[in-house]
Amino acid sequence: MNREMYETILNMPDFMEKALKELKLNGEVPLEIDGIAFFGMGGSGIAGRIVSEWLNYEWGVNVYSYNEITIPRNLSRNTLITLISYSGNTEETLMAAKNAINGGYKVAVISSGGRLIEIAMEKNLPHIIIPRIFSQPRESLPYLFTAAVKMLMETKLIGNVQLNQLNDCIETLYNVKKGLNTNNIPKILAEKVYSKIISIFTYTPLTPAAIRFKQSLNENSKVMAKVEVIPEACHNAIMEWEENPEILKNIAMIIIREDVMKERLIEISINTLKEIALQRGATVEELHASGSNVLSNILSAIYIGDLVSIELANIKGIEARRINLIDYLKGKIRSSIYM
Amino acid sequence: MNREMYETILNMPDFMEKALKELKLNGEVPLEIDGIAFFGMGGSGIAGRIVSEWLNYEWGVNVYSYNEITIPRNLSRNTLITLISYSGNTEETLMAAKNAINGGYKVAVISSGGRLIEIAMEKNLPHIIIPRIFSQPRESLPYLFTAAVKMLMETKLIGNVQLNQLNDCIETLYNVKKGLNTNNIPKILAEKVYSKIISIFTYTPLTPAAIRFKQSLNENSKVMAKVEVIPEACHNAIMEWEENPEILKNIAMIIIREDVMKERLIEISINTLKEIALQRGATVEELHASGSNVLSNILSAIYIGDLVSIELANIKGIEARRINLIDYLKGKIRSSIYM
Repeated sequence: MNREMYETILNMPDFMEKALKELKLNGEVPLEIDGIAFFGMGGSGIAGRIVSEWLNYEWGVNVYSYNEITIPRNLSRNTLITLISYSGNTEETLMAAKNAINGGYKVAVISSGGRLIEIAMEKNLPHIIIPRIFSQPRESLPYLFTAAVKMLMETKLIGNVQLNQLNDCIETLYNVKKGLNTNNIPKILAEKVYSKIISIFTYTPLTPAAIRFKQSLNENSKVMAKVEVIPEACHNAIMEWEENPEILKNIAMIIIREDVMKERLIEISINTLKEIALQRGATVEELHASGSNVLSNILSAIYIGDLVSIELANIKGIEARRINLIDYLKGKIRSSIYM
Repeated sequence: MNREMYETILNMPDFMEKALKELKLNGEVPLEIDGIAFFGMGGSGIAGRIVSEWLNYEWGVNVYSYNEITIPRNLSRNTLITLISYSGNTEETLMAAKNAINGGYKVAVISSGGRLIEIAMEKNLPHIIIPRIFSQPRESLPYLFTAAVKMLMETKLIGNVQLNQLNDCIETLYNVKKGLNTNNIPKILAEKVYSKIISIFTYTPLTPAAIRFKQSLNENSKVMAKVEVIPEACHNAIMEWEENPEILKNIAMIIIREDVMKERLIEISINTLKEIALQRGATVEELHASGSNVLSNILSAIYIGDLVSIELANIKGIEARRINLIDYLKGKIRSSIYM
C-alpha cells in the first residue's frame, strides 16, 4: 500500500539534485532586495520555513516565512514577497499575492501553474515553474525547496557557500537512503507509535522538521499530532505529563534531535522530559537528524519523518494520498468566496 | 479551592491600571533604537508576544518576541534586546542576557529582582522593576505586559495613540469582569471541556491568546492542550478529525474568535472545522474576544482563558499554583549547569 508515494519520498535526494540542475528563473528579480518573505500554506509553505530557519540561524540572512493572507506591516518595501503554491490555485496564497501586489511590494512566484503563474505572466513577475509531476503538493517539497534556494541565489542574498551546504545536504540524504536498506528506522518507529496521539518535541533550529513531521502525520497517517519547542516546552508543556494516566497511555513523545547536542541546557531538558514521560507510562522515541550543517539536520529529519508517516498509514491500512477533509474544506471556501 | 489565584487573575484590569501609574524606567534607553526584541520564557515571555503581535499587526512597529537562548543573527544592532523574567533567575533568560551583552547589543531588563536586576545594575542597563507581590510568574502578566508597553513608550516607537488603545483595553476588561457576575462563562466552559485534551483553534492576530490559554491549561489545570492557527490548520490539522472515533471522544475543540469576523475566508474555515469536529463526536466550544482593537481582543480572550484554567483546576480538585514538574526540571538544569 502507498507504494507510489513511498517511492516519491524515498527519491527526495534524487529530486533535489534534478531540481538544482533543471529549475530556471523566468524574468529577473529586482535589484536592491534586502530580504525575502515566503508566503504559502501547508506542504508548499513549509519550503519557505526550512529556508528561513536555515539561513537566519546559520547566516543571519533576512528570510521570513508566513502562512498568512495579509502582508505583515513591518516588512520593508525592499523585501521580495515570494508566493509559493504547488498547484498555483491555493486560495490563501492567491489572496496574499493580491495583497502584496496592491501593497506595492516587489513580488515573485514559485508554482507549477494555475492562477498564480497566470498572474506572474500578466504582471511580468519573476517566477520559477516546478514540473507538474507530483500527485500531492507535499510530495513536491524537494522541488519547492530547491526553487526557494534558487530564488535566493538570484537575489545574491546567498552564494556559493550556501550552495555547498545544499550539496552536502543532498549527500547526507543519499547516505540516509542507503542506511534504510540495512535498518528500516521509519518502519520500526511507526510500529512503536501506532494508535497514539503524537507529541513531537524539538528545539531551534530543527523546528521546521517538527512542523513538517506534524503535517505529514496529519495528512498521510490521519493521526493527531502537536509540536512543542524546547526550552519553552519546559515552562508549560511539561505539565501535560501530570494529565491522568489513562490519557497518557494514548500519547507517544517523539523527540527530534541531533546525535550530539550543542547546547547543554537543551540536552538536560530533553533527558528530564524523557524521564518524566516514561515514568508516567507514555511511549518515548527519538528521531535523529544527521549531517554536518543545519540544513542537513532539518532535511534528514524531514526525510525520515515523511517515511514514518507512510509506514504508519500502511499499518493503519489507509491511503496516505487521500485527504478528503481538506478537499471538502477547500471546496467550501471556493464556493463561498466566489458566490 | 484556588481562591487566591482566581482573585489575582480577576484583578487583571486593576493591576494593569496600577502598573500604568506605578512603573518607572530606571536609566535611559539609548537613542537610535529602531525596534525591540523581547526575550523571555513561559509566563514572562508571553508578555512580549502580546505586545509584538498587537503592534506589528495594527501599526507595523518592529517588535519581536523570542523564547530562545541565542540572539537571532538577523536582528539589527539598533534593536533593543529586552529580557523579561518575573523572578529574574530564569536560566534561559539569563543566558540570553549574556549572549546579548557579549554580542554588543543594546540591552534592557524587565524583572522583579534576582540575578537579572543585579546584571542591570552592574552593567548600567535601563530596567523596569516589577513589584514582588505575585506567587507565580504567570500571575504577574498584567505588570509584565504593561512594563513592556512602557519600555516601548520610552523608545518613542509608540506614543499616545497606542496608550489610548491600552486604556480602551483596560475598560474592556472591566466590562468583561462586570459581565461575570451575571454569566459565569469561564465556569460553564470549564465544565464542558472537563477531562478532555484541548485543541485550541484561532487565527492571527489572536494567536498570543491561544498560546497563553495553552500555557494556563498546562500549568494551572494540568491538562494537555495544543494550538492550531487558521488558515494553516485547514491544510493539515483538519486531518486530525479522521483519527479514530475513540480518540476523538477525548478531544475538545475550543475556537478563540471575535464575535464579528473581519475575514470571510477565516469565518468559512471556522464554520467548516466546527461542522466536521461535531460530526465526529468531539466537543466544540467558542471563546469570544471582545473590545474595539486588537489588544483588547487578545487580552479579553486571555482574561477569560485564564479564568477557565482555574475553574478547570477546581473541577479536577487540584492546586492551580503547584507546578512540581517544572520545579523539578528547573532544579535539574540548575544543578547540572553549575557543576
